[in-house]
Amino acid sequence: MTSEKGAADGVGVVKTQTYSFEGLELESGRRLAPVTLAFETYGRLNADRSNAVLVCHALSGDAHAAGFHEGEKKPGWWDAMVGPGKAFDTDKYFVICANVLGGCRGSTGPSSVNPATGHPHGTDFPFVTVGDMVRAQTKLLDHLGVGTLLCASGGSMGGMQTLQWAAAFPDRVKSVIPLATTLKHSPQQIAFSEVGRQAVMADPAWRGGNYYAHGQPERGLALARMIGHITYMSDASMEEKFSRRTRSGQTGFSFNPEFEVEGYLRNRGDHFVQRFDANTYLYLTRALDYFDLSGDKLLPSGGKAPPKFLVIAFKSDWLYPAYQSKEIVNVLRGRQADVTYCEIQSTYGHDAFLLEFEQETTLIKHFLARVSGKNVHD
Amino acid sequence: MTSEKGAADGVGVVKTQTYSFEGLELESGRRLAPVTLAFETYGRLNADRSNAVLVCHALSGDAHAAGFHEGEKKPGWWDAMVGPGKAFDTDKYFVICANVLGGCRGSTGPSSVNPATGHPHGTDFPFVTVGDMVRAQTKLLDHLGVGTLLCASGGSMGGMQTLQWAAAFPDRVKSVIPLATTLKHSPQQIAFSEVGRQAVMADPAWRGGNYYAHGQPERGLALARMIGHITYMSDASMEEKFSRRTRSGQTGFSFNPEFEVEGYLRNRGDHFVQRFDANTYLYLTRALDYFDLSGDKLLPSGGKAPPKFLVIAFKSDWLYPAYQSKEIVNVLRGRQADVTYCEIQSTYGHDAFLLEFEQETTLIKHFLARVSGKNVHD
Repeated sequence: MTSEKGAADGVGVVKTQTYSFEGLELESGRRLAPVTLAFETYGRLNADRSNAVLVCHALSGDAHAAGFHEGEKKPGWWDAMVGPGKAFDTDKYFVICANVLGGCRGSTGPSSVNPATGHPHGTDFPFVTVGDMVRAQTKLLDHLGVGTLLCASGGSMGGMQTLQWAAAFPDRVKSVIPLATTLKHSPQQIAFSEVGRQAVMADPAWRGGNYYAHGQPERGLALARMIGHITYMSDASMEEKFSRRTRSGQTGFSFNPEFEVEGYLRNRGDHFVQRFDANTYLYLTRALDYFDLSGDKLLPSGGKAPPKFLVIAFKSDWLYPAYQSKEIVNVLRGRQADVTYCEIQSTYGHDAFLLEFEQETTLIKHFLARVSGKNVHD
Repeated sequence: MTSEKGAADGVGVVKTQTYSFEGLELESGRRLAPVTLAFETYGRLNADRSNAVLVCHALSGDAHAAGFHEGEKKPGWWDAMVGPGKAFDTDKYFVICANVLGGCRGSTGPSSVNPATGHPHGTDFPFVTVGDMVRAQTKLLDHLGVGTLLCASGGSMGGMQTLQWAAAFPDRVKSVIPLATTLKHSPQQIAFSEVGRQAVMADPAWRGGNYYAHGQPERGLALARMIGHITYMSDASMEEKFSRRTRSGQTGFSFNPEFEVEGYLRNRGDHFVQRFDANTYLYLTRALDYFDLSGDKLLPSGGKAPPKFLVIAFKSDWLYPAYQSKEIVNVLRGRQADVTYCEIQSTYGHDAFLLEFEQETTLIKHFLARVSGKNVHD
C-alpha cells in the first residue's frame, strides 16, 4: 500500500552499520582478512525472507543510499528511489546497500588500516574485482539472514555488480535491474579510467600510494574527477546547464575558470577530494576495467535458470551507451531469459540513472510487482 | 593535368621557411613585436596570382603539411592531400601552410625568445585568438604577393581559421573548406580543453610556465595529450584497433599499461612531449575556447558577398560533431551563400579529417575546379 505522504517523507534518519567477517579469498589469489563492510538497510525483512532488495552503488557512491544521516542536509545517493511508496518501496521491501569491498566509505579498502602493519594498506592492498565485491556481499546477506534476493539493482559499476550476481549466484537472486552499464569495459571506457588514474599517479603528493601521513594527492584526484564529470554529462546537458556563459559576464584572456563549465568542474573536483580516497579511485577503476562477462560468462550454458531482467539504458549516455545494454539483452534473449529492455529518453547522459527517477520508478515498480507475483497496487 | 606517377611521388623534399614582420596588434589589446611565421609552400603561384590555397593546421600541427624534410621518413601532416594530382593539386595550385601565431614550431609563441628579455615569453606571452592567427596569415600572404586566396581549408582548429577568413576577409578568399569544425566551442569542448590545461598546470615541473631552463612538464603534457587522443578517436575505432586486447596476453592485477589501449595512449603522450611545448598547449586550447562566430558574426549582415563553402563533417566525430557543421551550413544557407555540405561515413572519429583522404579528395577536387571556373580534368 502506497501512501503519498510516505513517499514524500522518505526513510528518515538512518545510520550506517558495519559487519566484519574473517576474510575472503580474492580472484587475484590473495586473501584479504579481516573484511568489514559498511551497510545500511531500509524497511523490514518479511517473515519468509522473500522481500530483500540489494541496491549497488557506482564508483563514487557508498552505503548511504537513502534517508539522512543525523545533522546532514543531503540525503543518500538514491533517495529518490528508495523509501515508502518509491520504486524500491520500503513498505514492501527490505532494501540493503553496502559500500563495496575496496571502497573508502567504511568498507575494507586501500585506505583502511592493515591490522598486520598498523598503517593503511595503500598500494599493498590486493586488487579486487567486481566478482570479489559480490562475494563479499553474499557474506553480508548470510549475516542478515537473507538467502535469496528478490532483486539486485544498480547503475554503472552498480549495474556490473547486478550482472555479476546473475552470473555467479543465479540461485540467490530472483531478478536483476542493471542500469546504464555494460557486460565489459570497452577500450574507450578503459582509456577514460586510465587517464583518471594517470592524473592521480602523476601528482607527486601520491607518493607511490603512501600518502596517508601527508594528505592525499588532491590536485590529481580532483583532475580525475573533472575528467569523469565530463563523461557523466552529455553534450546537450552541458549546453543546457552552461552554454558559453562566463562567470563574470566576459572573457578576460586568462587561464582562470572564466567559463561557468570550468568553474563547475573545478568545484566538483575540489569537493570530491574531501570525501574520496585517491588509491580507492585507482583500485575501483581497475576493477571496472577488468570486468568482462562477455561471451557465455553472464549465463554459463548448462547453468541454473537465469533470474528475470529489467535492463535500463539512457539515450544520451555516451560513457555506457545504450548499445552496451542491448548487448546484455541480446545475450539474455539468446538464452530465452525473461528480459525487459527500456531506453529512457534523457538528455542527462550517464548521470541520468541518478536523475530520471520518475521513469525509472514506473518501470521498476511494475517489474518488481510481477517478480513478486503481485499486482503493482497490492 | 594529373599524372598518376606525380600523385604517388608527392612534393618531394621541402624546407620550412620563415617570414618576420614588425608586429601585430592583438585582439586582447596587446601588441606582439616582432612576429615570425614559419611556413612552407608547394607548387607555383601563377601569373595572375589566382591559384593560391592556404591550408591551416590543427592544434598540434605545423607548417609542414606535405613532402619530406631532409633525412626524415615521416611526411607532412596532410601529405595525402597536398601534392601533384592530389586534392590540393600542386600542378594547379600554389599551396601555403604556416605554423599559427602562438605556435611552437617556428612561429612566434610562448616558447619563442622575447627579444626584450632574452628569455622565452612563457606565460608573459599575450593571449592570441583565431582572429589574430588569421591576421598574421594575411601579412604572410602580402609578403608572398597573394592578394586573394582561391581557397582556405583545414580541419578542427584549422577549420576555425578558414571560417575566420570568411568572416574577417571575405574579399580576400574565394572559397572556404572547413572540415570537422564548429562556429563556436561548446561547453563540452571547453571542458576537454580545460582538463588538458589542468593536467599541464598541475605538474610541478610547469613552474607557473617558467620551465624553459629546467625542461618542460612532460608528465602533465603527456596526460593532456592522452585525454586529447581519446577525443580524437571514436568508440568504434578504439574497439577496432584495440578491443580488450592486452599486451602480454593477460591481465596481471596491476596499474601498468596492461591493455593495448593504455600502452597506445601512454606512447602517444610520451611522443608528443618531444615535439610540442606545454605553454603553447595552454595558449592554443584557450584560443579554441574563445572562438565564437555564432549569431551573425560569420557573415555580418550588409557585408561583402560570402565566399563559396564546402563544409565537411564526419559521422563518428564526437569531439566536433556533425551537428556543429550543420549549424555552419544553416547560417550560410540563411544568407543564400553557395554552400555544399557533406557528412562522410567514417568510423575514425575526429581524426577522420586526417585519414579519409580518398573521399575528401573527390569532394575537394570537384569543388576547387568549380570555384576556379574549370573542369575537374583540366
